[in-house]
Amino acid sequence: MKKIKAGIIGATGYAGHEVARLLYNHPSAEVIWYGSRSYVDQSYSKIYGNMKSFADDSCRDDDIVALAKEADVIFTATPQGYLAGILTEEILKECKVVDLSADYRLKDVKVYESWYKIEHKSPQFLAEAVYGLAEVNREAVKQARLVANPGCYTTCSILTLYPLVKEHLIDPDTIIVDAKSGTSGAGRGAKVDNLFCEVNENFKAYGVASHRHTPEIEEQLGYAWGDEEARRIPGGKPLTINFTPHLLPINRGILATCYAKLADNVTAADITAAYEKYYAEEPFIRFLGEGACPQTRWVEGSNLLDIGFVQDPRTNRVIAMGALDNMVKGAAGQAVQNMNLMFGLPETEGLLFPPMFP
Amino acid sequence: MKKIKAGIIGATGYAGHEVARLLYNHPSAEVIWYGSRSYVDQSYSKIYGNMKSFADDSCRDDDIVALAKEADVIFTATPQGYLAGILTEEILKECKVVDLSADYRLKDVKVYESWYKIEHKSPQFLAEAVYGLAEVNREAVKQARLVANPGCYTTCSILTLYPLVKEHLIDPDTIIVDAKSGTSGAGRGAKVDNLFCEVNENFKAYGVASHRHTPEIEEQLGYAWGDEEARRIPGGKPLTINFTPHLLPINRGILATCYAKLADNVTAADITAAYEKYYAEEPFIRFLGEGACPQTRWVEGSNLLDIGFVQDPRTNRVIAMGALDNMVKGAAGQAVQNMNLMFGLPETEGLLFPPMFP
Amino acid sequence: MKKIKAGIIGATGYAGHEVARLLYNHPSAEVIWYGSRSYVDQSYSKIYGNMKSFADDSCRDDDIVALAKEADVIFTATPQGYLAGILTEEILKECKVVDLSADYRLKDVKVYESWYKIEHKSPQFLAEAVYGLAEVNREAVKQARLVANPGCYTTCSILTLYPLVKEHLIDPDTIIVDAKSGTSGAGRGAKVDNLFCEVNENFKAYGVASHRHTPEIEEQLGYAWGDEEARRIPGGKPLTINFTPHLLPINRGILATCYAKLADNVTAADITAAYEKYYAEEPFIRFLGEGACPQTRWVEGSNLLDIGFVQDPRTNRVIAMGALDNMVKGAAGQAVQNMNLMFGLPETEGLLFPPMFP
Amino acid sequence: MKKIKAGIIGATGYAGHEVARLLYNHPSAEVIWYGSRSYVDQSYSKIYGNMKSFADDSCRDDDIVALAKEADVIFTATPQGYLAGILTEEILKECKVVDLSADYRLKDVKVYESWYKIEHKSPQFLAEAVYGLAEVNREAVKQARLVANPGCYTTCSILTLYPLVKEHLIDPDTIIVDAKSGTSGAGRGAKVDNLFCEVNENFKAYGVASHRHTPEIEEQLGYAWGDEEARRIPGGKPLTINFTPHLLPINRGILATCYAKLADNVTAADITAAYEKYYAEEPFIRFLGEGACPQTRWVEGSNLLDIGFVQDPRTNRVIAMGALDNMVKGAAGQAVQNMNLMFGLPETEGLLFPPMFP
Repeated sequence: MKKIKAGIIGATGYAGHEVARLLYNHPSAEVIWYGSRSYVDQSYSKIYGNMKSFADDSCRDDDIVALAKEADVIFTATPQGYLAGILTEEILKECKVVDLSADYRLKDVKVYESWYKIEHKSPQFLAEAVYGLAEVNREAVKQARLVANPGCYTTCSILTLYPLVKEHLIDPDTIIVDAKSGTSGAGRGAKVDNLFCEVNENFKAYGVASHRHTPEIEEQLGYAWGDEEARRIPGGKPLTINFTPHLLPINRGILATCYAKLADNVTAADITAAYEKYYAEEPFIRFLGEGACPQTRWVEGSNLLDIGFVQDPRTNRVIAMGALDNMVKGAAGQAVQNMNLMFGLPETEGLLFPPMFP
Repeated sequence: MKKIKAGIIGATGYAGHEVARLLYNHPSAEVIWYGSRSYVDQSYSKIYGNMKSFADDSCRDDDIVALAKEADVIFTATPQGYLAGILTEEILKECKVVDLSADYRLKDVKVYESWYKIEHKSPQFLAEAVYGLAEVNREAVKQARLVANPGCYTTCSILTLYPLVKEHLIDPDTIIVDAKSGTSGAGRGAKVDNLFCEVNENFKAYGVASHRHTPEIEEQLGYAWGDEEARRIPGGKPLTINFTPHLLPINRGILATCYAKLADNVTAADITAAYEKYYAEEPFIRFLGEGACPQTRWVEGSNLLDIGFVQDPRTNRVIAMGALDNMVKGAAGQAVQNMNLMFGLPETEGLLFPPMFP
Repeated sequence: MKKIKAGIIGATGYAGHEVARLLYNHPSAEVIWYGSRSYVDQSYSKIYGNMKSFADDSCRDDDIVALAKEADVIFTATPQGYLAGILTEEILKECKVVDLSADYRLKDVKVYESWYKIEHKSPQFLAEAVYGLAEVNREAVKQARLVANPGCYTTCSILTLYPLVKEHLIDPDTIIVDAKSGTSGAGRGAKVDNLFCEVNENFKAYGVASHRHTPEIEEQLGYAWGDEEARRIPGGKPLTINFTPHLLPINRGILATCYAKLADNVTAADITAAYEKYYAEEPFIRFLGEGACPQTRWVEGSNLLDIGFVQDPRTNRVIAMGALDNMVKGAAGQAVQNMNLMFGLPETEGLLFPPMFP
Repeated sequence: MKKIKAGIIGATGYAGHEVARLLYNHPSAEVIWYGSRSYVDQSYSKIYGNMKSFADDSCRDDDIVALAKEADVIFTATPQGYLAGILTEEILKECKVVDLSADYRLKDVKVYESWYKIEHKSPQFLAEAVYGLAEVNREAVKQARLVANPGCYTTCSILTLYPLVKEHLIDPDTIIVDAKSGTSGAGRGAKVDNLFCEVNENFKAYGVASHRHTPEIEEQLGYAWGDEEARRIPGGKPLTINFTPHLLPINRGILATCYAKLADNVTAADITAAYEKYYAEEPFIRFLGEGACPQTRWVEGSNLLDIGFVQDPRTNRVIAMGALDNMVKGAAGQAVQNMNLMFGLPETEGLLFPPMFP
């Protein structure tokens, strides 16, 4: 069988590189274009020494129109607004696109522009774009030309809370997500704040009550609670949460600790049943059960999401916890999972291997 | 002036060692007894190589009765239940005691026994013991013979929330504390879970809804809300919180991210005013203001607590954040601060120096 | 084709676990026995949470005789002396053995006993055992029943120096290996010295002039210099080196910085030619060339060894540097590489994937 | 007594900040000028959050002429060539200067220009400048107007080897220094190579056979071997070494592992005697004795240098190891030590406190 030809725009960022790394071992796909703005004509393996002997190709520019003619699928791991500024119907007729940026994640262009502080240049594709969370939107992803690959924090937060919201086991007005991410999520840009000596032996919150992943979580949990039109919770309000990201001095990994008041008479067994209802068959979700605390080390390097929860009878709250690798299930692995679905391949192809430890 | 003679029971644990380190540079105190169960007669600087040439004394046993005759103050950095099992009126007549364990922190012996799963052997001292949070109980500490030095998580959580609770700016039934601690808080015991390769590049929650620092925070915030007798919040219930500790792959530092619903019409200015009312004169609290996110690196090695907050108008919650060094303000530094007060010394003596960075 | 049935004795140590993890994705082998002394009957994935859904088998005991009847190959990741104490001709008639301990690495039983301070219980297998460094002993490994899998430091040190010694480009009496290893090399035993807070933010040498990997490097470089009998360098002495290991606060990775005086008139081009002569076709060695400094991050998680060198005209020394992942090429990956050879499989099967970064 | 007025040029780099931090607690000095090129008029404690409430002054520019009129001493923690380009006799008449850059460390301007690749703009001060290694040049430092504060690697390497070279216990033609440094040594510049994800979980050598600290070590050890004029070792050559720096994923700390052939009949007792001869009275050197391996954790945050050694009878080499904190004894602490000497203060003033652990 002919391999799927994949191009990566933004291949020299951490997420773009992870797509390249994962595709190297994918039996049905190959990377034909390592797109880069900064490193054109340089050997890819000079920039990522791990890829030496695996990907010694020269980086090419980020000419998506030319790429679309050569490729079957394009992964865009680019800054916010980039893809929205250049995407055309012509490109989408040539090949499929999996966008790792946030450009097509939010259906409401006003919400996008308000949180991202940039104008959206191609809102005409918003309706078509499929939010690429296979565990929720599997069938739609299969049909998609354009997939909006979810954010790292959002993947973790949404999937950890999804069954509880969907089954109305919690009060949707009480959701708090306290999330912590490894530093690869901050990208490879040269900033003082991300220097080793600034991050190492440190811990901090950032973007409190203002992080851009907030409306993405709210929109998706809103769909889970109600319907696509309304997304209204009791009282007629939209679902609104507190989301607090923190920076962890580790390379990879996100843990989301999620709090919510339980609805009346909800038991731990109800919660377990909800997780099993939605996730028992999911190949990339491991529900660890009541009382279990997921750890980032147990998912590192894999496309897995681990979930556990504690029900606190003293406060009638549930504390639901999810852990994933932000570079894999939170970005590149999920993008490949979406590619698999879009091309009719087994969803787990090239993605089912145990996490690396230690 | 004659120096205060200090003995340390449990001097070879991390907290006991930190007391020794801090006292080395204290102008008015000196360590005369490095008590240890495991290393009797071994040189203290063999166990803590940093102390070579500073404290080459041999470790002595943990005979508190003998020590009480020699010392002016005893610091006990011992396992839960240890001090409660051996403390006598005789000892307290001989010298003052600062207990870094939890034995005298909770006034209600039943609460202690229920969370710690051990019998309390000397409840007769509970009434006398002063909870050693100088920022709240300064005058009582000055008079105390026996100080219960607060826990690390609890110091951070209580002080971060205290002005908000005291001024009734938040709904006390909605408090959630999501806390993260460096690994020195887990002690120096040889456990697989605390090995480098298990902690490094990992992040996890633990003790969810069951950590022993929970009732300590609840009791103190209850006092802040109401009165010592009742500690009842609206509805007649006791103040109850969710407290979730997490393990950080750093040596030192705690960050507590605290959530609560704001009372009606509370503004950011009200919150700022409350913090300034209680902390403007506090030598060890730096209120960083609205919008500021404290970071553990900015307090490392110091007795400082940094506090900042964000008011979220979308959810009407406040996110209050506190950062301290668990070994200093969360343990040994606070113990020395209490010693200073108990002996009529300037409260900041030996403790006022900038944090070390990087 | 029927899969090779593999048993692991010591499967709950880091190295044994890495064998299990690598074999999970090996197309021609499967693990049928997770042997453990401490965790018999416990689920393997309780001990290694990453393996959940991949290896939920219960741990079995370490009965190698029973295992030999079921397995085609046994990997022993056991303490020194263990395999030597139980290995029999009967076992070797039943199945092949790859020993990750040092029991059969040194041909001279006296050298073994002098460095390891234990009696060797089965010296009769020493002659037969093949030192499993495929890049040097490939043909012998293919024929072997019993392979002594090289040590982590030794693999890195020997292969980095091998072409230089073999081609007599350096003075063998001037070799110094200054090596640094990640902490996974210290194993999963609960020791204070390996606690997070003791290793993190620290660096130290240990085992200076006394580490057990020293005679292993000396023996193999001796063969490279001369012949198997003599191993004599000019002057009639045996080849003797200085080997200094250090502990790195990282999970995985070894860097060996090797120094030696160059023979007269040796140029950088000569050195490059020697590396290319021996390694140009090696699938797991990437020779990075003159002036290149290998980094552990570029090999992490892979079976690769990266080599670079600098020739210093000021001192007429060469500084040759090698980097590998101690858990893979330094232990489990090399063991699987040896298994592949012993069973007539392609040498790279299940082992050729890019290192993980970051 | 009036406090010494100190100005810092380059106060917003790591080394300049460490000078500020150490001087805060110095009883006889105070910082009156936080000079910065990038942050003029910004609050110093905005840039270094740890200094909040300790140093909230605004940063001033780097006008050294103006500063010289106000200050008693100037610390320059500036890029190579900066001070050499602006230093004048006028400035030196106004105040003393401790230069943390390399501008006046090497007596031979050609050596400087060859290793640093820049022209030296004020060679007229080279003769006057005193190499500020108090343990070797104490009396000269006391008289100096201009002190060249030694480099971090060089302080560690020179002091570790000094007694062995001075006493001719080793062959000076066989010296190899394999050194490892924490990342704070790389400064606070925003470079991809120093990002958290690039340094964390990594280890590498760099600047092999070309690092600029090499000639500094060679010059000083040359003086130790012979005399200031000649610096010739047997054979009439200058003393030449191999120096290999490596980057450690820790914030602070340098370990230098030094190798050399022992002269005939030198015993471990001779080596111990040499260290004791030179260092027994040194307040900042802790000689740990034969067989001891210094660790960076035991000196972190302090002005101490720990030294240990192993004599290897198999190879007749000594392995001498030194550990210090690159920010303190390797930079700012040593600068303050020099200031103390230059102003007739006790050498240890403000610098004698135990290292911080963990």
